[in-house]
Amino acid sequence: MPLGERAGDKSDSRYCGVETEFNDDIPQLLSLNINGGFDFVVATLMDPAYRPSLKSDEGNKSCGVLPFAGSDLVLSPSQWSSHVVGRISLWIDLDSEDELLRRDSETCLKQEIAWAAHLSLQACLLPSPKGTSCGNYARVVNQILQSVNNMQLWLRIPLQKSDEDTVNETGDLGREQMDSWELWNSFRNLCEHHSQLSIALDILPSLPSANSIGRWFGEPVRAAIIHTNSFLTNAKGYPCLSKRHQKLMSGFFNHSIQIVISGNQDINNSLRSTEAGPNNNNNRIESVQRHPLRPYLDYVGYLYQRMDVLSEQERFELGYRDFLQSPLQPLMDNLEAQTYETFEKDTMKYIQYQRAICKALQDRVPDEASSTVTTILMVVGAGRGPLVRASLQAAEETGRKLKVYAVEKNPNAVVTLHSLVKLEGWEKIVTIVSSDMRCWEAPEKADILVSELLGSFGDNELSPECLDGAQRFLKEDGISIPSSYTSYIQPVTASKLYADIKSHKDLVHFETIYVVKIHRVARLAPSQPVFTFVHPEYSINNSNQRYKKLQFELPNDTGSALVHGFAGYFDATLYKDVHLGMEPLTATPNMFSWFPAFIPLRTPVCIRPGLPLEFHIWRCCGPTKVWYEWCVASPTASPVHNTNGRSYWVGL
Amino acid sequence: MPLGERAGDKSDSRYCGVETEFNDDIPQLLSLNINGGFDFVVATLMDPAYRPSLKSDEGNKSCGVLPFAGSDLVLSPSQWSSHVVGRISLWIDLDSEDELLRRDSETCLKQEIAWAAHLSLQACLLPSPKGTSCGNYARVVNQILQSVNNMQLWLRIPLQKSDEDTVNETGDLGREQMDSWELWNSFRNLCEHHSQLSIALDILPSLPSANSIGRWFGEPVRAAIIHTNSFLTNAKGYPCLSKRHQKLMSGFFNHSIQIVISGNQDINNSLRSTEAGPNNNNNRIESVQRHPLRPYLDYVGYLYQRMDVLSEQERFELGYRDFLQSPLQPLMDNLEAQTYETFEKDTMKYIQYQRAICKALQDRVPDEASSTVTTILMVVGAGRGPLVRASLQAAEETGRKLKVYAVEKNPNAVVTLHSLVKLEGWEKIVTIVSSDMRCWEAPEKADILVSELLGSFGDNELSPECLDGAQRFLKEDGISIPSSYTSYIQPVTASKLYADIKSHKDLVHFETIYVVKIHRVARLAPSQPVFTFVHPEYSINNSNQRYKKLQFELPNDTGSALVHGFAGYFDATLYKDVHLGMEPLTATPNMFSWFPAFIPLRTPVCIRPGLPLEFHIWRCCGPTKVWYEWCVASPTASPVHNTNGRSYWVGL
Repeated sequence: MPLGERAGDKSDSRYCGVETEFNDDIPQLLSLNINGGFDFVVATLMDPAYRPSLKSDEGNKSCGVLPFAGSDLVLSPSQWSSHVVGRISLWIDLDSEDELLRRDSETCLKQEIAWAAHLSLQACLLPSPKGTSCGNYARVVNQILQSVNNMQLWLRIPLQKSDEDTVNETGDLGREQMDSWELWNSFRNLCEHHSQLSIALDILPSLPSANSIGRWFGEPVRAAIIHTNSFLTNAKGYPCLSKRHQKLMSGFFNHSIQIVISGNQDINNSLRSTEAGPNNNNNRIESVQRHPLRPYLDYVGYLYQRMDVLSEQERFELGYRDFLQSPLQPLMDNLEAQTYETFEKDTMKYIQYQRAICKALQDRVPDEASSTVTTILMVVGAGRGPLVRASLQAAEETGRKLKVYAVEKNPNAVVTLHSLVKLEGWEKIVTIVSSDMRCWEAPEKADILVSELLGSFGDNELSPECLDGAQRFLKEDGISIPSSYTSYIQPVTASKLYADIKSHKDLVHFETIYVVKIHRVARLAPSQPVFTFVHPEYSINNSNQRYKKLQFELPNDTGSALVHGFAGYFDATLYKDVHLGMEPLTATPNMFSWFPAFIPLRTPVCIRPGLPLEFHIWRCCGPTKVWYEWCVASPTASPVHNTNGRSYWVGL
Repeated sequence: MPLGERAGDKSDSRYCGVETEFNDDIPQLLSLNINGGFDFVVATLMDPAYRPSLKSDEGNKSCGVLPFAGSDLVLSPSQWSSHVVGRISLWIDLDSEDELLRRDSETCLKQEIAWAAHLSLQACLLPSPKGTSCGNYARVVNQILQSVNNMQLWLRIPLQKSDEDTVNETGDLGREQMDSWELWNSFRNLCEHHSQLSIALDILPSLPSANSIGRWFGEPVRAAIIHTNSFLTNAKGYPCLSKRHQKLMSGFFNHSIQIVISGNQDINNSLRSTEAGPNNNNNRIESVQRHPLRPYLDYVGYLYQRMDVLSEQERFELGYRDFLQSPLQPLMDNLEAQTYETFEKDTMKYIQYQRAICKALQDRVPDEASSTVTTILMVVGAGRGPLVRASLQAAEETGRKLKVYAVEKNPNAVVTLHSLVKLEGWEKIVTIVSSDMRCWEAPEKADILVSELLGSFGDNELSPECLDGAQRFLKEDGISIPSSYTSYIQPVTASKLYADIKSHKDLVHFETIYVVKIHRVARLAPSQPVFTFVHPEYSINNSNQRYKKLQFELPNDTGSALVHGFAGYFDATLYKDVHLGMEPLTATPNMFSWFPAFIPLRTPVCIRPGLPLEFHIWRCCGPTKVWYEWCVASPTASPVHNTNGRSYWVGL
């Protein structure tokens, strides 16, 4: 009974769970909660009174029957795996000073996980580390992670970070002790970023700053546990949440994070009253109808259903979210029809091009000369013709006379181009040239050169090299559209992307620049410009090699954060004030031709406010290829990535 | 013409070089300096006036003849490779703000290295990074390192670190800018610890603190360049060095670091005067006799020859220095005769055992009962009998009556044991038992249990498990020799060991504990105790699992340092005040049975004073094996190493 369904969104966040106390009648516990409207229960599997060391003192060590809640037969396999998350005993404390408690905790934790794995549960909820040290806890969990098959381990972490005000009073150490992210970061480092270790965030009545919360959206948060005491009561006496909590819940819904409602012993009380009743069946239904947490569930469902439906573009992009793609190699490879098809649908992009061409035509030819002067416009990389169309429309719009050369190296696209020209009756205006712009010998020079050669990271599909080749046939005072472009990057937490890259277990994937619809990421600092190219470029010592050193600083109230890599964007000036781009703050709206680039780091870097991240990136050019190298220089130096383009390069 | 020869020591530090200015007559430059007593020259290969960008402006870009000092034919291949180290142009500055200078530097550096590689030079000296940033310099060097074959690149680094006093005035940033180690550390991180990137230390007139200098002995320092202005003048007018400089030179000699003397233009002056003379041959000899740096060379030779000759033990151990060995598996494997042979020669060890047994015998049997009471002594793990002999000698020394059981699981050793007993006529006193002590059913109980089962890291050869098995046949008030033992560790810089482990390119080698005669290491903090075992051990909840959390703090004047891993030792109490061990501060002298253990880290950790290193280590026991897991928890958490003993374990 999910919370609802948003058009197209089938994510896990539709399901809502409930945390329960230990009860040795699991079937009853389950049916009450499922009938009460919840999708799954987070249930304790072992009697809280159980201690391995007490048991062995009794002398029945060899017998070894554990106080599990009944046998595995009490539920069907699909009930266990669909409706039960194992809740590991709360008392375990693997970093206690008490050695016996440590040993008991290790034994019990391993027994519980083994039992949960036997039941094929999808996940177990591990209690929060008790103190600020978690070395032994993490070691044991790491041991378990090596052998557990598909089960997720959700480490419970309170969403907690003291404010800056408190810091100044208590000093640095105090602050770190209060930031639960630090604890999580240590734990997952010790477990080597294991993909089955994830987070269940405990939502408390008071929330940290927005920047601090933001970090978690790049982390592997699977569940958010919200306690009834974090709710407020509205005028009618129903539970509700503060505005900030509501916003947080929307964030969870958007990031496929499941909500778990947690609410004390009430449910057990209701169970007991049920058991006491004379007619079990009737009473059970009554108790279902008055599941004590139902108002909370209803409110969460209301928040879920209240969300905006996904736009068409969002629905289209859902399948691409956080899915790493290798960038196109448009020079070495020829694009396929399907790719052209997709890009041509990006109406917004061609509207911008048409606006730019209009302005350029008007600047080039004054109104009074519009009937006499013919502008020579060359579309270099014409593909199947969308820029030819935009150019002709611009000519019509401005009343300028135009002669168009459509230069395209992909012979397959040229076929389509010919049929388009014929279909539209453009034969007199448009000349089709089947050639690589870098070696074409043009019969005349152009007034305007129009191209769309940009990649997600601007110059990464070798627009600079192509346009350098094409500007031979641009008049000295000619115009290039785009006239310049700049790449941008920003550091991100992106544990999902990192895990995907790591799963390949090689260096190559860590030294590749990807294209990806980033979604489960935390953007840690505003993006900064990287490389700029201007066209045409006539300076003598011109080189398309570039080197940029950038410093990123976390906002003060963020706390520490882990940088898995950098999101890359571009912004292009098509002509004068007409720009086109996908840098988040200035992005052209409703454009879908480009997903961001992702530049990974081989080892994630922990940064904290006041300790800036220094990043270096190079664009290197060789005789047959162009590639990027990059590194972090501070707070600690990383290796230089992709030396000599050994892992990733773009062929010339 | 090396500085001399210490018995057995054939290390590189016998050779002394000289740094020279550019001279286009390389043969003359070489012969003058070789005849002047030096073993090699550090010579500039390219005209200092050369700039690639100026050249291309002249329009002869395509011609491309570079201003090299003559052709490769001016010296023989063996002269180039044995007597010339290439000195890369000093003007290059790859991190300049001036883009043209950066580009010229990159071109020139690559040309010079290519030329040096063409000449098969053994090494090139790279000039110091000019500022505090070295990202672009390191990137280019890293590119070069990927393709250069065997040549070493010596990065010139001044031995320089400001004092603590200066820190407080200038703040933290100021200190880091003044510590050249930080620069080196960034550079080598960016080059990913490449094994062909090493250091030439520039020795300045004033030296940093001893702790700060100490760090460098764990780094890949290949050469130390000492300028004539770092010398003092003695009463007779000859050059000499301060006491601290002398000590530093001894350190270099001991660590196979070559000295290079650097002394301004004097030698060029003398060259010029030579060229001016009418009779070249005669004059050349004269000029040789008065090589202006000869007094400095003679003094360095004097320091070298003044060093203590190597002791027999040191000579024996020379071949083992920094050579990683896998620890023995004495339970799973049987030792070979050669191994017994080596260990039995360790006289000091058996003297200590004999002293301990004497005291135990005297405590066990009062003088007045010595003729009536027979002590039952069992040697568990008797090998070929050295402890049997020590026991019998102790009995003779104290006048106690003894009955000895020699228990040994290795049937091959038992053969030798039988012949020893026969040879010595011990048949009435010694009973040989061919059995594993863990399952032997003893006919009577022992007063004293003597064993030598310790590994470099104490319990790592499973002494605890063996003695737990043997204490079944120890009387309740019986004595175990040893009665306890404790392992110790300390963090070390050990770039050589790290490089050797890294060269295997797998995880297993990074998760193995080695035995190694550590030599080129820097011990960064005093060692601390880790695991202690006491024998006999009768407590009910006894377990041989252990967990220890340690914090190491660098001395304040060290500066930052890189921890590649931990050196491990043990100290054992044989009986009462008789101990045996190899923990550096308390080591039993002249003992050679144990080299230290080395516990590596997969990723070296940078630590700095005030930011303690927190290390966790576990001894884990399974049904068939014992293993260690370890991790760094602070300043940043490492992965837990050797989870579940996946890479390294000791079989039971």
